[in-house]
Amino acid sequence: MSVVDEKLTQLGIVLPAVPKPVAAYVPYVEAGGLVYVSGQLPSRDGKVLYSGSVPKAMDISTAREAARLATLNALAVVREAVNADWNRVIRMVRLGVFVQSDPGFDQQPQVANGASDLLLSIFGDAGRHARAAVGAAALPLNAVVEVELIAQIKPI
Amino acid sequence: MSVVDEKLTQLGIVLPAVPKPVAAYVPYVEAGGLVYVSGQLPSRDGKVLYSGSVPKAMDISTAREAARLATLNALAVVREAVNADWNRVIRMVRLGVFVQSDPGFDQQPQVANGASDLLLSIFGDAGRHARAAVGAAALPLNAVVEVELIAQIKPI
Amino acid sequence: MSVVDEKLTQLGIVLPAVPKPVAAYVPYVEAGGLVYVSGQLPSRDGKVLYSGSVPKAMDISTAREAARLATLNALAVVREAVNADWNRVIRMVRLGVFVQSDPGFDQQPQVANGASDLLLSIFGDAGRHARAAVGAAALPLNAVVEVELIAQIKPI
Repeated sequence: MSVVDEKLTQLGIVLPAVPKPVAAYVPYVEAGGLVYVSGQLPSRDGKVLYSGSVPKAMDISTAREAARLATLNALAVVREAVNADWNRVIRMVRLGVFVQSDPGFDQQPQVANGASDLLLSIFGDAGRHARAAVGAAALPLNAVVEVELIAQIKPI
Repeated sequence: MSVVDEKLTQLGIVLPAVPKPVAAYVPYVEAGGLVYVSGQLPSRDGKVLYSGSVPKAMDISTAREAARLATLNALAVVREAVNADWNRVIRMVRLGVFVQSDPGFDQQPQVANGASDLLLSIFGDAGRHARAAVGAAALPLNAVVEVELIAQIKPI
Repeated sequence: MSVVDEKLTQLGIVLPAVPKPVAAYVPYVEAGGLVYVSGQLPSRDGKVLYSGSVPKAMDISTAREAARLATLNALAVVREAVNADWNRVIRMVRLGVFVQSDPGFDQQPQVANGASDLLLSIFGDAGRHARAAVGAAALPLNAVVEVELIAQIKPI
């Protein structure tokens, strides 16, 4: 069992099944040693669990949970990309977090930390990543966040 | 004639001239085997043909046409990057689609499919891509969509 | 002294200290010869100097200054990534510029030119980059712009 599998168990995290893309694209593409993961929503079993904007529809703390859930979906995709062999994951590279924001809301970083903290807790130093957190006027399926991830892996 | 050229002919698609950047940047940069295409608008001959937000200014079906047109512009840039030799294109990697959205509009994926479906119809499996579709409050020249593309190519 | 150092001196530019990330991530990650710089704000000494939306809070010319300042922060990060050896920088690759925009504002490219022009003036041809400029409903710390950068460097 890899260190990451142990960490997931220790944290009580069970990764979900890879979410089906909501349209005509694929969950990830690998190119040049990088895995580009498609934008992930805070969904489980195909149903968005956190919808609306911050702070009107939910507070920061709840939106942070949503960012964590979307990131779990992104990690499920990474696991598929490495055929469940976490030893092939070199590191997280870049996280993009879009937060559905009411005008005047400017704490996107606090929301995005739900994604960042998860990566750090699972991968340690290899989980440190570059990040852009941005406010969006609207998001697919009215999700409160959308998370995009690039991870570096060892080619087979 | 490459397979892609044949496909374009078969689909009745004539790629436009490479749109001039609307400001101080270049249409693409190649680095590490990837072509980064600048954000493309639904324009022809320098004029944006689809402007405003969804659904106020246009319906989903029309916005989808706009996404297709912006993607044709992106492909014109890719063609320039490979000096019109489509055999050098390995695959599409990542598509970013920003949709100018009214508050509450959450069907960005349906709009973005105008871009995705075009890539699939031209490149087949090599057209499958990772994607992020996001709602934007406002876009350059009041365009309804902006499309960003990363493609993998063979170095010369 | 490298050509870039000379150019910076000639332009009277002193790069700031690397801004501390405002949350749980790192200023940059290097992978596959590319440096991914985290989203940078128009801040100095940890304080955002340009806040609000365009054109309500400020005009295009002022927002352009903000884009320039955020890009100086991004370049401070690149300098750290190459350990102050600018000869290791091959070229700029991709610039993402989010502009906090009031509905109907569509001149994000003019704002983003504050970032692009700076890169060109410092790096010359190596400063030419692909770019996406997008309107955002809201940004971290109420910043008027957020700038994301990818640069290509020589591995050690």
